[in-house]
Amino acid sequence: MKKKKIFNIAIVGLGNIGSYLYNFLNKNKNNLSDKNNVNFKILYVTAKNKNKKRGIRIKKNQWINNYANIVNKKNVDIVIELIGGAEGPAKKLVFGALKNKKHVVTANKALISKYGDQLSKIAEKNKVNLEYEAAVCGGVPIIRSIKEGLIANKISRICGIFNGTSNYVLSSMDENQTSFKDTINKAIKLGYAESNPSSDINGDDVASKVKILSCLSFNSFINKNIHIEGIKNIDEEDIINANKLGYKIKLMGFSEILNNKIFQRVHPTLVKKVSYLASVNGVLNAVIIDGKPIGKNIIQGEGAGPSATTSALISDISSILRGNIKFPFAISDSKRKNYLSGKISDLFFSSYIRLNVKDKYGVLSDVTKIFSNNKVSIKRVLQSPYKNKKNSSIVIITHRSKDNHIQNTLKKLAKKSYIIEKPKLLRIENG
Amino acid sequence: MKKKKIFNIAIVGLGNIGSYLYNFLNKNKNNLSDKNNVNFKILYVTAKNKNKKRGIRIKKNQWINNYANIVNKKNVDIVIELIGGAEGPAKKLVFGALKNKKHVVTANKALISKYGDQLSKIAEKNKVNLEYEAAVCGGVPIIRSIKEGLIANKISRICGIFNGTSNYVLSSMDENQTSFKDTINKAIKLGYAESNPSSDINGDDVASKVKILSCLSFNSFINKNIHIEGIKNIDEEDIINANKLGYKIKLMGFSEILNNKIFQRVHPTLVKKVSYLASVNGVLNAVIIDGKPIGKNIIQGEGAGPSATTSALISDISSILRGNIKFPFAISDSKRKNYLSGKISDLFFSSYIRLNVKDKYGVLSDVTKIFSNNKVSIKRVLQSPYKNKKNSSIVIITHRSKDNHIQNTLKKLAKKSYIIEKPKLLRIENG
Repeated sequence: MKKKKIFNIAIVGLGNIGSYLYNFLNKNKNNLSDKNNVNFKILYVTAKNKNKKRGIRIKKNQWINNYANIVNKKNVDIVIELIGGAEGPAKKLVFGALKNKKHVVTANKALISKYGDQLSKIAEKNKVNLEYEAAVCGGVPIIRSIKEGLIANKISRICGIFNGTSNYVLSSMDENQTSFKDTINKAIKLGYAESNPSSDINGDDVASKVKILSCLSFNSFINKNIHIEGIKNIDEEDIINANKLGYKIKLMGFSEILNNKIFQRVHPTLVKKVSYLASVNGVLNAVIIDGKPIGKNIIQGEGAGPSATTSALISDISSILRGNIKFPFAISDSKRKNYLSGKISDLFFSSYIRLNVKDKYGVLSDVTKIFSNNKVSIKRVLQSPYKNKKNSSIVIITHRSKDNHIQNTLKKLAKKSYIIEKPKLLRIENG
Repeated sequence: MKKKKIFNIAIVGLGNIGSYLYNFLNKNKNNLSDKNNVNFKILYVTAKNKNKKRGIRIKKNQWINNYANIVNKKNVDIVIELIGGAEGPAKKLVFGALKNKKHVVTANKALISKYGDQLSKIAEKNKVNLEYEAAVCGGVPIIRSIKEGLIANKISRICGIFNGTSNYVLSSMDENQTSFKDTINKAIKLGYAESNPSSDINGDDVASKVKILSCLSFNSFINKNIHIEGIKNIDEEDIINANKLGYKIKLMGFSEILNNKIFQRVHPTLVKKVSYLASVNGVLNAVIIDGKPIGKNIIQGEGAGPSATTSALISDISSILRGNIKFPFAISDSKRKNYLSGKISDLFFSSYIRLNVKDKYGVLSDVTKIFSNNKVSIKRVLQSPYKNKKNSSIVIITHRSKDNHIQNTLKKLAKKSYIIEKPKLLRIENG
């Protein structure tokens, strides 16, 4: 194991993460070279604005003015893309680098979940690595674990808490009994949410991760069919009701194969207070894998931020340094499968339904009749009048019912004159 | 990525695990060859008794009568050692295979925790892999995660529940309020404990895993100094007391670096009921890693049994197939360190102490005086008389105190005429 080759690295994008990575690689160069038994060098860096203050010392000959030039530099072995976004410069850079036979490391979940199939094809053809551990759940080594640690397993289901911002918001609402709006504003102030947190709270961020995890878990191509609900309609009342009923609310992503169809979904979910997932609070992420022969595996850690992301990026870089060539999606393109997509309406859930109704005679009787007519059986009812109002809240927990039947029930209810607000549905995860 | 080389595998040892692995490799040959882009073949198998019924079909030319011959077969690339035990045939086989430049995969924690340093030296010199994912926490991909997924991190502490049998026993005592003896007998009947479960319940099995995890976490050589306590002195009364006080009892392993010394310990530990570890029940294993820059990472899964162990063995075999050459202990022998060993008596714990005393005037006053004289401050006291007896149980929870001071307190107490049984100490893990 003599050290020979020097790998030349180019970092493109020097925001919080790029700057942290740059400093970390410099500080830990010897240790990482020792562990991987290979030398490396940060040959080039580039970013939009050369003169921005970043707290890092870039040598004069390291800076490249035009990021697009990086892919043409013959002596660059590994391109690290930290620009972000599925289109524009990030897309151009990653396609260009792989085409020019350079290894790519990226933290870009939007890019991978959109163009992963095409990128993977080029990487495989050119025998280079396309690594994206940092794109899914930050410092949680989930990509590496599925591709390597759990390689023996046939995975049937993967689910979990994949977004730190929304988990922070829901945990904080639960702990401090604050409104959604106040909590998200606090999260932005504390740096746990971006100034525009829409993709975190509307479920899109989780959806990208689910799509990527599906490919790895099921050896399939990217499947764009996914049911997405975010958390912005969750209010204090739901959090309080959930607690009364023995639950916590979490934004979860799910992907599973049932009857040879793939079901992908993202939605706020009630989990039992005593369950493992209820203990995953704040900005933590958690991934639960069901596979054979392994059974259930859990991996938990910090899902975002420069330090966690750098840990993931370095694991990718190290893998390339050690010459651990891998198919980007665990198996050759020629062996990947296309699954038919299943619909959430065909799945079965026990559900939490909240109705805001006029408090008048016969309402509950009519409500329960509609449930029964639509084949949804009721397990539990909590009716309580709102203070100083003529309205009542009716919370219903259903027995396990077809989602389609529940949707129909809600549609029927929505038309009733005694219904004040659009009925609210939250699905329950048992187990 | 053309498939070229065929790797020839020899499996030595065909107990439950060896037989499961043999069948699994045969059934999943195509899929594993595809994922790793390399072909492989089980060239030879051998075990003590050729004629034992195993439910597997071994071809005539696969069987080798004498295991020792395997290391001399030129066409064997990977030797899988599933004999077990730190000495005898397993030791001879693994040393011999590495010396003859064959990759080794083993599930043998006794061997690795005893001879790992010597074995690793030979593997490094001969540029072959020595892989032992299956030796620590079965199907939990902890070795791979430390060496690869978390390679960037400086780990300061690693702890967790590393033994499925003892965790099953403690969980079951808690759930069913049964005695230690009845529970272990039930565990043996159900196959959750071996017929001689002593190394599982006396802490030795956990100690081997702690020693191995220390090396990987701290880039150190094997350190044999470790404080070990098992679970056989835990009785129903402790379980009930712990519950009353808001705790569960778990057998935990710990390794940490404090002031440049390594502290390794295994002992039953009180963890808060609402903590993550309290939710890890039955035969599950869980590992908690504290590192920089990652923060806290958790990995959980099934710790034992043929299926979980096979998942781990296959991840090791795949790593070799892909040519992912690694130092057995994450870094070259020449860079590994020796740490001075710290003693548990220098650490600080909040502790649970249970005294069985004669129920007479002045006892509690004398007990508390002894605590105070030994610089141990009391946080909580539960005194309750035993039914139909003249004795009382005194349970004391201390504030965080030096373990040495607590030990001195117990020694003083043990000499008192009102003490009926040897005082019992359980340490508390906060956080």
